[in-house]
Amino acid sequence: MDKMIIAVIGGSQCTPQEAEAAEAVGRELARRGAILVCGGRGGVMEAACRGAKSGGGQTVGILPGTHRREANPYVDIPIVTGLGEARNLIIVRSADAVIAVGGEYGTLSEIAFALKSGVPVVGLGTWELSKGDRQVEVIVRATSPVEAVERAIELGAKRSSAISR
Amino acid sequence: MDKMIIAVIGGSQCTPQEAEAAEAVGRELARRGAILVCGGRGGVMEAACRGAKSGGGQTVGILPGTHRREANPYVDIPIVTGLGEARNLIIVRSADAVIAVGGEYGTLSEIAFALKSGVPVVGLGTWELSKGDRQVEVIVRATSPVEAVERAIELGAKRSSAISR
Amino acid sequence: MDKMIIAVIGGSQCTPQEAEAAEAVGRELARRGAILVCGGRGGVMEAACRGAKSGGGQTVGILPGTHRREANPYVDIPIVTGLGEARNLIIVRSADAVIAVGGEYGTLSEIAFALKSGVPVVGLGTWELSKGDRQVEVIVRATSPVEAVERAIELGAKRSSAISR
Amino acid sequence: MDKMIIAVIGGSQCTPQEAEAAEAVGRELARRGAILVCGGRGGVMEAACRGAKSGGGQTVGILPGTHRREANPYVDIPIVTGLGEARNLIIVRSADAVIAVGGEYGTLSEIAFALKSGVPVVGLGTWELSKGDRQVEVIVRATSPVEAVERAIELGAKRSSAISR
Repeated sequence: MDKMIIAVIGGSQCTPQEAEAAEAVGRELARRGAILVCGGRGGVMEAACRGAKSGGGQTVGILPGTHRREANPYVDIPIVTGLGEARNLIIVRSADAVIAVGGEYGTLSEIAFALKSGVPVVGLGTWELSKGDRQVEVIVRATSPVEAVERAIELGAKRSSAISR
Repeated sequence: MDKMIIAVIGGSQCTPQEAEAAEAVGRELARRGAILVCGGRGGVMEAACRGAKSGGGQTVGILPGTHRREANPYVDIPIVTGLGEARNLIIVRSADAVIAVGGEYGTLSEIAFALKSGVPVVGLGTWELSKGDRQVEVIVRATSPVEAVERAIELGAKRSSAISR
Repeated sequence: MDKMIIAVIGGSQCTPQEAEAAEAVGRELARRGAILVCGGRGGVMEAACRGAKSGGGQTVGILPGTHRREANPYVDIPIVTGLGEARNLIIVRSADAVIAVGGEYGTLSEIAFALKSGVPVVGLGTWELSKGDRQVEVIVRATSPVEAVERAIELGAKRSSAISR
Repeated sequence: MDKMIIAVIGGSQCTPQEAEAAEAVGRELARRGAILVCGGRGGVMEAACRGAKSGGGQTVGILPGTHRREANPYVDIPIVTGLGEARNLIIVRSADAVIAVGGEYGTLSEIAFALKSGVPVVGLGTWELSKGDRQVEVIVRATSPVEAVERAIELGAKRSSAISR
C-alpha cells in the first residue's frame, strides 16, 4: 500500500491527440512508480494502460460489465464490477489523484465525484465548470502529460499526508 | 406506470431562495400529477418533497444510507440503497426528466449522469459547462419554478414517446 | 412513511404453484395496506404485483437494468438502478420484512443480505441453511400465503418499533 | 491478465482455526502464482492476505467504505468502493474461483452471487444449502487449505477455458 495510485479518466473513444497524451501520461506514471487505475476499456483508458506497460508499470481496470474479457489488453488486474456507470465512483475513490484527458459526460461524472470526495483533479483539455457568473476553478490545468503527472503526484502526496495526519 | 416521474436534484444544504424555488417546483409537479423522485434528504430535496405533499402529490426518496429514518418527513416511499453517492445514478435513471435547483458537486454528478443517459436536464441557477472555448449548452435553462416544471414535463414526454416508438 | 413496506422475492421464472402463492401474497399485502416492493420483473415478482394491484395496493419495482420498460405491467413505481444484481440489496434494505417464494441463487443472495441487515425473512418453500452439523433456523417458515403475510407484517412491525425506540 | 485471480471470502471476525486455514490458503495461492482478491478487511481476509504476502504473492482488497485506510496491512492494491456490502459482488465477479473459509451471512451472500454468476465455489467449513428435502451440492468441499487451492485453481482454469472458447 505504499505506491501511489493515480486514476486516468477520459472517453472510450478519443482523438489521436488525446490517445497520444494519455499514453504519455501512462508512461510517465510508470516511470515514477505509480500504479495506474482506470475504467479498463478503450480510447483514453487503453492508451494510458499501453503507456504504463511500455514503461514497466502496473495497471488496474475497473470494468463496468460482468466479464473480464471487456478489459483492454494492457490491464494487469481487471476488477469486474457489473455495476455499469456506477463503477466510475470506484475509479476516482481508489486514486490519490485523477488526471482527466479530454472526456465526455462519463468523464464529467468522474470529475464531479472526485471533487465531491476531495480527490484532486488535474485536467488536460477537459471540462470547465462555472456557476452563474462565477468561474469555478477546481480542476488544476496542465499543459503537457509530464506536467499533469507531476501535479497529480504532488497533489496526491499532499492529500495522503493530510489524511493520515 | 402511466404517471410521469420527475427528479428534483440539489444540495442537502441550500439558500432560502433555493428552498423556496424547490418547494414551488414540488407543488407544481403535484398539481400536474407527476411523481417526484429525489435523494430523500434535506435542503432542496426536503423543500421539493414538502411542496409536493402540500399539493397532494407523491414522493419517492432514494436514500444513500442504510436506514429509512434518514429520509425527510415528506418522503412517502423511502428506497434504502446503502450505496452512498452511487445512489445519485438511480435518481436520474428513474426519472423522465431532471430539474436541478442550485447544487454542488453531487448535483453536478447527477447532471453528468443524466446527460450521459439521455435524460433531459432543466436548470434553475445551476452549473454551466464548457470545454475549451466551446460553451456546451445541454442544460435547458428555466427562469421560474413553473417554467422549469413545464419544460421538464414537455421534454420528459417527448423522450418517453421517442423511446417507446 | 407510515405504511409498511414488504418485499416479495423469488425467481423471474417460477412454477405455476409459486406464481399462485406469490399472487395470493400480493393480494393479502394489499388488503392489509402494505406497499409491495420487489425486483419488478417476471415470475414471482410479476405474480406478486398482479395480486397487489388486484387488491388495490401499490407496487414498487427495483429494476436491474437501465430502462423502465423492463418492469412488469403491474409495477406502479419503477426504480431504474442500472446496477444489475446489486439491486437485490436495495430491495431487502427498503423493506420492513421479506417474503421469499421459492427462488434460486438470486433469491438466496437476497435472503443472505436480509439476514445480514437484520430484516426478518419469511419463507414459502425456499432455501434452508445449515453449517456443519448445525441447522441454522433463521428463516421463519410459513405454510400458506396468508400466514406468510401475517408473520411478515408482525415481524416487520416488531423490528420497526425496536429501531425507533 | 494472464495470472489466475482467486477470491478468498470469510468473516471479518473468525476463529483461530479459520485464520490459520485462511493464511495457509493465501500462502499456497502465492506459491502457485495466483493473485488473491478479497474484501480487504480483518479476520479471514487479513489472514489470507498475510499468507499471500509471506509467500511473495500479490493481494487486492475490495473495500466497502470510502477510505483506503480501512484496508488490512497486507493489501497491496486497495480498491475503494464506498458501496458497503454491494462490494461483495465485485469480489466474486473479479475471481476465476472463490474459496470460502467459514463465514457468516456476508459470506453466504458472496456464495450466492458466485453461484449465480457461474463462478466455482470451494468451501472449507462453510455454509451448506438445501431446498425442501433436496440437498443442493454446489459448493465443492475441501478438507485442507492446499486441497482448497488445488480445486479452486483447477475449476477456475476449466471455467476460463470454457468462457474463451
